[in-house]
Amino acid sequence: MIMLWREERMNGTRSTLDWRTARLYPIPSLIYLIHNNVQFATLTYVDTSTYQIMGNLKIVTTGILFRLFLRRKLSNLQWMAIILLTVGTTTSQIKGCGEGNCGSLFSAPYEGYFLGLVSAFLSALAGVYTEFLMKKTNESLYWQNAQLYLFGVLFNFLRLVLEGGWQKVWGLFNGYDVMTWLVVLNLGCTGLLVSWIMKYADNIVKVYATSMAMLLTMILSIFLFNFRPSLQLFLGIIICTMSLQMYFTPPHLLVELSACQRDPGPALSTISIEKPNAAT
Amino acid sequence: MIMLWREERMNGTRSTLDWRTARLYPIPSLIYLIHNNVQFATLTYVDTSTYQIMGNLKIVTTGILFRLFLRRKLSNLQWMAIILLTVGTTTSQIKGCGEGNCGSLFSAPYEGYFLGLVSAFLSALAGVYTEFLMKKTNESLYWQNAQLYLFGVLFNFLRLVLEGGWQKVWGLFNGYDVMTWLVVLNLGCTGLLVSWIMKYADNIVKVYATSMAMLLTMILSIFLFNFRPSLQLFLGIIICTMSLQMYFTPPHLLVELSACQRDPGPALSTISIEKPNAAT
Repeated sequence: MIMLWREERMNGTRSTLDWRTARLYPIPSLIYLIHNNVQFATLTYVDTSTYQIMGNLKIVTTGILFRLFLRRKLSNLQWMAIILLTVGTTTSQIKGCGEGNCGSLFSAPYEGYFLGLVSAFLSALAGVYTEFLMKKTNESLYWQNAQLYLFGVLFNFLRLVLEGGWQKVWGLFNGYDVMTWLVVLNLGCTGLLVSWIMKYADNIVKVYATSMAMLLTMILSIFLFNFRPSLQLFLGIIICTMSLQMYFTPPHLLVELSACQRDPGPALSTISIEKPNAAT
Repeated sequence: MIMLWREERMNGTRSTLDWRTARLYPIPSLIYLIHNNVQFATLTYVDTSTYQIMGNLKIVTTGILFRLFLRRKLSNLQWMAIILLTVGTTTSQIKGCGEGNCGSLFSAPYEGYFLGLVSAFLSALAGVYTEFLMKKTNESLYWQNAQLYLFGVLFNFLRLVLEGGWQKVWGLFNGYDVMTWLVVLNLGCTGLLVSWIMKYADNIVKVYATSMAMLLTMILSIFLFNFRPSLQLFLGIIICTMSLQMYFTPPHLLVELSACQRDPGPALSTISIEKPNAAT
């Protein structure tokens, strides 16, 4: 709201409520509402390790919905990069030997996997829809954010009143200290950053940013919390870095320029230097 | 020898010993001799899991020597593919939770890693040198094989005599049964196949074939020996398959053809659909 007020004062503009676009803003909030409930349902079937690993499926579903809904074309190499990013984050999460409960991974009933898949699609759908919304109109980003989060606040407020009654609402900020407000501020900043990514970059940039942040957190944990660096973290970092290069590096830097002129490339038949005597 | 005899009878040719090329054939045998001893030295420092995982370094060193000695150019994408193949085979070998000795992985003294690296370079050097030798002359492949293995037999025979004396030589085939001869036949066929790969394809094709064979063996073990399929095997297979595509697929099938015409590609700045109001 502060950013919006500052922007309007500087540009001398005034944002107005346009009902034809405003009615689209509750949709992401609704998708997230369903998604949250599906997440809890999934957790009743699968253990937390399986749940965490299935969460990586969101990268692939984001790619699929990005292609289907936003009609953005990806090259075969970029599809491979997206699959590798999923594999890379999953690799870094493999339980090392001696870590936690072993037998439980991928031993859940089918309903668990189905719900995990639904959850991955809903999460991707919310992301892709938000991107569509942010890029659809020429409105100020901060005005778009205000409308988007208004519905989030509204839905959460309704749930609070319905579940806990009015006494819950009055005691909303009970127990808040400086640390709590810093967490709130941090989440607010994250929201702003994500909205910038959605408007000026896209969902794929967001999944890369999220995955890389996860790996960075794991690296920082090594130094800050004496977290034991594992081989799988090391491998995961290499895979994700390769994937990042494959997705974002301009193709002419990855392959020979001459190879682009419909050269059949290093096929087996062309590698052979000389024909054998005996082949006649 | 049978293949050579058959080929000469069919073509009416006769292979002759050319000392200028024949003197090069002991070199791979010598490199393998040193390599074998370095391998045993490595194993005195590191445990078998670390040893197995370090063995994958051979893929990268093969790529490097392939570039340096055979002067074969690889695109950046192909280098990335080689690194991913190494990562993929390593991923499939990660010890799952509850498997074997945990703490020992990568806890060896530095000498162990150094010897592992030397071993990876020697193994790659032998491979690259053999390829150079096989492609150097127009001689029959079977005649080349005969010369190559002659020195292998000679060196091993010498070692046998020096270590065990003549009584060891007389008892060389003691205890051989049908199964033993089948193993010998199998190793002979492997040798022929590898020589075909070296002459008509190359070392990189060989590392891909070896890695894929390892993964196939692990898949077959699931069905034949009730080997428990692991998440890391599944991830390793995906990574290696992607790597295979990246290396061998003609570039114009991986990236958009238009993108080859020095298009800067999907850089962040070009993804943005519209400029913000506020950016002025």
